[in-house]
Amino acid sequence: MAQPDESRTKPKVVDIHTHMYPPEYISILSSRTEIPLVRTFPSPSSPDPDPRLILLEAELPALEKALQDPSAPIPGRPLTKHFTSLPQKMHFMSTHGIDISVLSLANPWLDFLPASEAGAIAERINASFEEMCSSSSSKEQKLYFFATLPLTSPTETILSCIAHLSSSGSLPHCRGVILGTSGLGSGLDDPALLPIFHALAAHNLPVFLHPHYGLPSAVYGPRAGEEYGHVLPLALGFPMETTIALVRMYLAGVFDAVPGLRMILAHSGGTLPFLAGRIESCVLHDERLVKEGKTAARRRSVWEVLRSQVYLDAVVYSEVGLKAAVDASGGGREGAERLMFGTDHPFFPPVGEEGDRDGEWESVRLNVEAVKRALGEQSEEAELVMGGNAMRVLRLFD
Amino acid sequence: MAQPDESRTKPKVVDIHTHMYPPEYISILSSRTEIPLVRTFPSPSSPDPDPRLILLEAELPALEKALQDPSAPIPGRPLTKHFTSLPQKMHFMSTHGIDISVLSLANPWLDFLPASEAGAIAERINASFEEMCSSSSSKEQKLYFFATLPLTSPTETILSCIAHLSSSGSLPHCRGVILGTSGLGSGLDDPALLPIFHALAAHNLPVFLHPHYGLPSAVYGPRAGEEYGHVLPLALGFPMETTIALVRMYLAGVFDAVPGLRMILAHSGGTLPFLAGRIESCVLHDERLVKEGKTAARRRSVWEVLRSQVYLDAVVYSEVGLKAAVDASGGGREGAERLMFGTDHPFFPPVGEEGDRDGEWESVRLNVEAVKRALGEQSEEAELVMGGNAMRVLRLFD
Repeated sequence: MAQPDESRTKPKVVDIHTHMYPPEYISILSSRTEIPLVRTFPSPSSPDPDPRLILLEAELPALEKALQDPSAPIPGRPLTKHFTSLPQKMHFMSTHGIDISVLSLANPWLDFLPASEAGAIAERINASFEEMCSSSSSKEQKLYFFATLPLTSPTETILSCIAHLSSSGSLPHCRGVILGTSGLGSGLDDPALLPIFHALAAHNLPVFLHPHYGLPSAVYGPRAGEEYGHVLPLALGFPMETTIALVRMYLAGVFDAVPGLRMILAHSGGTLPFLAGRIESCVLHDERLVKEGKTAARRRSVWEVLRSQVYLDAVVYSEVGLKAAVDASGGGREGAERLMFGTDHPFFPPVGEEGDRDGEWESVRLNVEAVKRALGEQSEEAELVMGGNAMRVLRLFD
Repeated sequence: MAQPDESRTKPKVVDIHTHMYPPEYISILSSRTEIPLVRTFPSPSSPDPDPRLILLEAELPALEKALQDPSAPIPGRPLTKHFTSLPQKMHFMSTHGIDISVLSLANPWLDFLPASEAGAIAERINASFEEMCSSSSSKEQKLYFFATLPLTSPTETILSCIAHLSSSGSLPHCRGVILGTSGLGSGLDDPALLPIFHALAAHNLPVFLHPHYGLPSAVYGPRAGEEYGHVLPLALGFPMETTIALVRMYLAGVFDAVPGLRMILAHSGGTLPFLAGRIESCVLHDERLVKEGKTAARRRSVWEVLRSQVYLDAVVYSEVGLKAAVDASGGGREGAERLMFGTDHPFFPPVGEEGDRDGEWESVRLNVEAVKRALGEQSEEAELVMGGNAMRVLRLFD
């Protein structure tokens, strides 16, 4: 009966975009010689002896350089405790006033595993997330998770994994699945994925769609890696990958075929809120689609799908972007009901000499401020985005 | 002295994004066997005997099929009079209440010409545009143009072309240049382009930046062309190409190096308004850029560049996108002063059996409505976007 009024008046803050690598996953990455991998670079000139996490195609040139030349800059990012330690996650939550986190395995998930291994590893990793959630949830801080699917396995293995996720009792903290854009290997518009989407819808498991592969490096030109760091692939490639994946699903009719499917799009939909009008116009003006009756077969516009089957996280780092995401989701209260706050922890930590990873993170502050500025400091809409929507949509009951 | 009050009270509508292919250019395309090209497909089953314009890498598979199999769908788009005829342009302007058009050669401009030919062809094409503008401008309708640069030629040829554009008398209707994203062959962040940007700034010639190359087809997956028409490359590839080009310029420090440079971005900046926050955050959080002091060397944020050296056209097909473009440009009156209406004519004509190319175009209506809904039907801000800004920025005086 302690402080019942305070707990009722203070609205909950929920982080739906927050990643972890459990020990099983780190040991897989550490045994690998191709990306994704974990590797320690014992360079005497290195100020940072941590093992490094190397995930992206864009990081490959730096990796190759570092392997040949110990004085070259260390590639990838430091594999700090923020990626692996549950106490560190709880500390991060306290520091930023987060009451509930919905954890997910970070990219690239199990996309690189052989078919024969993926099923068993997915089971172990999901069990590991369940264990984290059940062991660490307290009165003050609660954890849930989005599960991982063994997408390189045969469809029956994937379907049995989904059935296991939703069976009562075994994984009570699971609230959906995290998916990349590769699907079974040829994208999310692959008809072979429809049974999976049907099963996810039937079991009321929303899909948290997250990018990893970006765009081919050639599009960034010759100066990209060396001079611009990872800005282009992370700032532009990631959001475009998400947008392409979602629009391919839309054009393939997945949303009409599986009306119960719910998607939560990382990074506020990539670029979808801004481009929805152009997408809709390009469909209406495509000579071939119109002649072949393919636009008439569309039962709903991009806007209608955005406002019925799609949710957006609020990881867009600006008031401008946040407003567009709310507007594209229906605007006003209706639009605000479709956005959910996230941090993208442990990515985008403070860097440089003054960067204190144990303190407040600028990347989080940017996203909190975007919500407050776009919707009003203490508005009901801002409270919904900061936590209320996630509580409702993901059924995060006390 | 006819109706002086009416002409004074009715604000001008200016279309800054409207393309033409003059006869010289069509004859070049018609002589080619590789894209871009013009080709007539005399298939008996074809309902449309027009020559076809084939521009994009995404159109290649359909072209190859059609060359082998006369019953296959005709590739590309019909080369209607809308692409080539000045009376048709004037008719389009009347139909949509457009008082002034700032014409430009459509993509891919002269990007494919041998160095030895590009200079002379650019000169002829720019003279042809000047002739169109001076012969057709009347009291009711006026034409100006963005000139074309021979970017495959040696730098001296390009610089002499720029000097010619701005020399008083010879091309009095030129108001800037249209540029694609390839630059001299390796993008707009190429240091070898700096003398060109300096010359454009010195001669007060804004750059209208327009996409053409999109993204490599592989990113759209196996179903793209056959099943989704050109939606993915046009709706997503084009805007991302523009965004990447601009951010590469930003990261290379071009805006700081050439503070007089003015860019007008096609399609409301591609995705820049929505992604500006993420771009800024990715720069601030890039371990390597921060360590190497490269972020400290940036004199201004993406937002500051957007609000000082960048203008956006208003070709975004939605109220959501238009609002984001205004907000990213400074918001309110300040933001509205940086947007300029456009139609993208002759692209996106009405299609299908009911499509009447001589009537009102839905693609134009979508953009007019976006401005009116975002800024208010008869607001001063809407009038600025519909014409006032272009009059001021491009000096379109009567």
